[in-house]
Amino acid sequence: MSIITLLTDFGTKDEYVGLMKGVILSINPDVTIIDITHHIDPQDIRQAAYMLESAYHYFPAGTIHLIVVDPGVGTERAILAVKANHQFFLAPDNGVLTLLLCDDNGASIIRVTNSNYFLNSVSQTFHGRDIFAPVGAHISRGINLKAFGAETDLTQVVRLKDLRAQTGRNGGLVGKVVSIDRFGNLMTNIDVGTLADLCKSGSPGAARFNVGGYVIKGLSATYGNVGLNAPLALIGSRGYLEIAVNGASAAQYFNIGKGDRVRVMVKPGHNRRPK
Amino acid sequence: MSIITLLTDFGTKDEYVGLMKGVILSINPDVTIIDITHHIDPQDIRQAAYMLESAYHYFPAGTIHLIVVDPGVGTERAILAVKANHQFFLAPDNGVLTLLLCDDNGASIIRVTNSNYFLNSVSQTFHGRDIFAPVGAHISRGINLKAFGAETDLTQVVRLKDLRAQTGRNGGLVGKVVSIDRFGNLMTNIDVGTLADLCKSGSPGAARFNVGGYVIKGLSATYGNVGLNAPLALIGSRGYLEIAVNGASAAQYFNIGKGDRVRVMVKPGHNRRPK
Amino acid sequence: MSIITLLTDFGTKDEYVGLMKGVILSINPDVTIIDITHHIDPQDIRQAAYMLESAYHYFPAGTIHLIVVDPGVGTERAILAVKANHQFFLAPDNGVLTLLLCDDNGASIIRVTNSNYFLNSVSQTFHGRDIFAPVGAHISRGINLKAFGAETDLTQVVRLKDLRAQTGRNGGLVGKVVSIDRFGNLMTNIDVGTLADLCKSGSPGAARFNVGGYVIKGLSATYGNVGLNAPLALIGSRGYLEIAVNGASAAQYFNIGKGDRVRVMVKPGHNRRPK
Repeated sequence: MSIITLLTDFGTKDEYVGLMKGVILSINPDVTIIDITHHIDPQDIRQAAYMLESAYHYFPAGTIHLIVVDPGVGTERAILAVKANHQFFLAPDNGVLTLLLCDDNGASIIRVTNSNYFLNSVSQTFHGRDIFAPVGAHISRGINLKAFGAETDLTQVVRLKDLRAQTGRNGGLVGKVVSIDRFGNLMTNIDVGTLADLCKSGSPGAARFNVGGYVIKGLSATYGNVGLNAPLALIGSRGYLEIAVNGASAAQYFNIGKGDRVRVMVKPGHNRRPK
Repeated sequence: MSIITLLTDFGTKDEYVGLMKGVILSINPDVTIIDITHHIDPQDIRQAAYMLESAYHYFPAGTIHLIVVDPGVGTERAILAVKANHQFFLAPDNGVLTLLLCDDNGASIIRVTNSNYFLNSVSQTFHGRDIFAPVGAHISRGINLKAFGAETDLTQVVRLKDLRAQTGRNGGLVGKVVSIDRFGNLMTNIDVGTLADLCKSGSPGAARFNVGGYVIKGLSATYGNVGLNAPLALIGSRGYLEIAVNGASAAQYFNIGKGDRVRVMVKPGHNRRPK
Repeated sequence: MSIITLLTDFGTKDEYVGLMKGVILSINPDVTIIDITHHIDPQDIRQAAYMLESAYHYFPAGTIHLIVVDPGVGTERAILAVKANHQFFLAPDNGVLTLLLCDDNGASIIRVTNSNYFLNSVSQTFHGRDIFAPVGAHISRGINLKAFGAETDLTQVVRLKDLRAQTGRNGGLVGKVVSIDRFGNLMTNIDVGTLADLCKSGSPGAARFNVGGYVIKGLSATYGNVGLNAPLALIGSRGYLEIAVNGASAAQYFNIGKGDRVRVMVKPGHNRRPK
């Protein structure tokens, strides 16, 4: 049984997601459809890129991911079908696949143009229903990607810059809040690898996290490691730095939001002072 | 494998939808259940009627649609099981099926009364769980609609008036906003056919859309056809006139809401003036 | 085909629920996954306990319920796997199973410790993905609960007190609002049995429900039994006292919220006065 996942900014109050599922099941009634989320902030391609990166490898080989965050629907932007890491990805060519395509992972990339696999009537405002759903369903039936259009390569597709945190002038890291989760946790674009490299210059406890003018000292392992309503920095389940408040919303506590900066410093001397 | 869809105003914060699914799977474990939406505005029968119209034909033949927007739950209102267009529909007899039953489509209509197919204990507040779910599951197992009650006909069921846009005194159309989607797009009850008839009296570019005192000139094909943050009128994916703002919320831009009027005028002379 | 249900406070805006489903399907692709809700108020263990009680018996025997409302994730709190009433339950040992375990129902209770059934890498912040999902999937494949850890008993697990309404000093009942549903109905912890016992001392019409300083006289059968926008008390679909307003939100009408008190009095003389 094939799995198709949906990752969109369609929300769930309208019929959009249900219609995509109807189209998919009309073509392949045996597929299992899983919602990753439909609550990407409207047209926030970067937020979807981060979420896809954190999600896809928890699905089995052969899973087909439809990513429909598509401000350019109906315009000239292309649609890409990608096979990478033993899974399939179908998305607008707008950079949402950047984090998937940034490594040399032998991805094959197809520009989807064969309208034989689209719905008979294609609207200019809802390609999720009229193109992504039917093409995804046909992939789940085993149609080879090359049937959908011509192969292209990494140099020909849109890739976003500045998704990762930057090194600041003082040697620290400058990242930002890319998402605020249901609990008010602030999810950043500072990944665990980059953070670990920085921390090599000091002890783990020497790291200082600057959030909205507030400084958090050291990394915690989990929420309950600090007192109730106390802030903490930790590596979240995505593998990125997360700023949280135990039992409360960090977004409210710090009064900061998506796009705001988070800085990390490690003072090299800190772990050498006498105890 | 059968498909049952759910279209309700139950929301998803409570257990209501999950319980319907539990009841369905207890009777038919092999059914695939698809949520169309559970976020119809509470008790807004008209909004559900429009959504059902736009949704059902994207599902395969034999699909069973449960529509539970039911302000009269527990009162004398009847429950209808309908077969039309090779699909099944189960809904309160409150007009929510009006747009499905308005054409002479050979629908067979049953008044559901046979409590052998209900849960053993039927509450007076949650027929979704106690009647709609089990009856829908039994339909998915192939039980003939006539087993559920006596046949009735179009003259005996509740049908809503004024669902479609009206012709105004000046020859234009007067419709209204029936739904605001996740992106803030304003979905109207002016359907593409009626609009096309009106436009025959002028060129497409001659149409004028009056929304909250603002006038939009001409129909666009898709959001990206106008500048960022510019308003536009287009035929939405439902096949109805939609008022949008590229990259932003039309509901906020125009500060209008559900029920507010949208007027369309076509000045016959406009497309004949010299260029 | 097995069924796994999910009852969490994860919300649906993030990838958390989708990832749990990916992990489950990676281990057992044939399972049907049903969302009960993901909108338990963050970390509200009691609210989840009530919802679970009202939900599980609508699912078929063998269903596996994953309840992940887990403020103590990553700390020393245990995880319990329970077999009771022919179904399975997997939850943190934080009291969320109290209403399931309060009767002598022959439940077998396992403390889950065998990390062979967890994901290879277990984060300290997302046991839903790393422990609950894989263990639940393995249960659905028929693994005996005893494979996951040692058996324990009712005396060793966390159980919450004061979940049920109390008898007040004047012989009435003192309960509280435990949940506000999508329609603004106020769901209380006064169960139908306790209420019936109280009402034996008077006629049904003699009951008085005190909500936010307002008194509702008598129980109604359903919303439509009172006028539009009129308040009523009824036994809701959960089998608990519910305070509602016909066609409107009781939470707004009474301006009260979760945790606020609801009192019930039955004046014994009321049903004996001459008419």
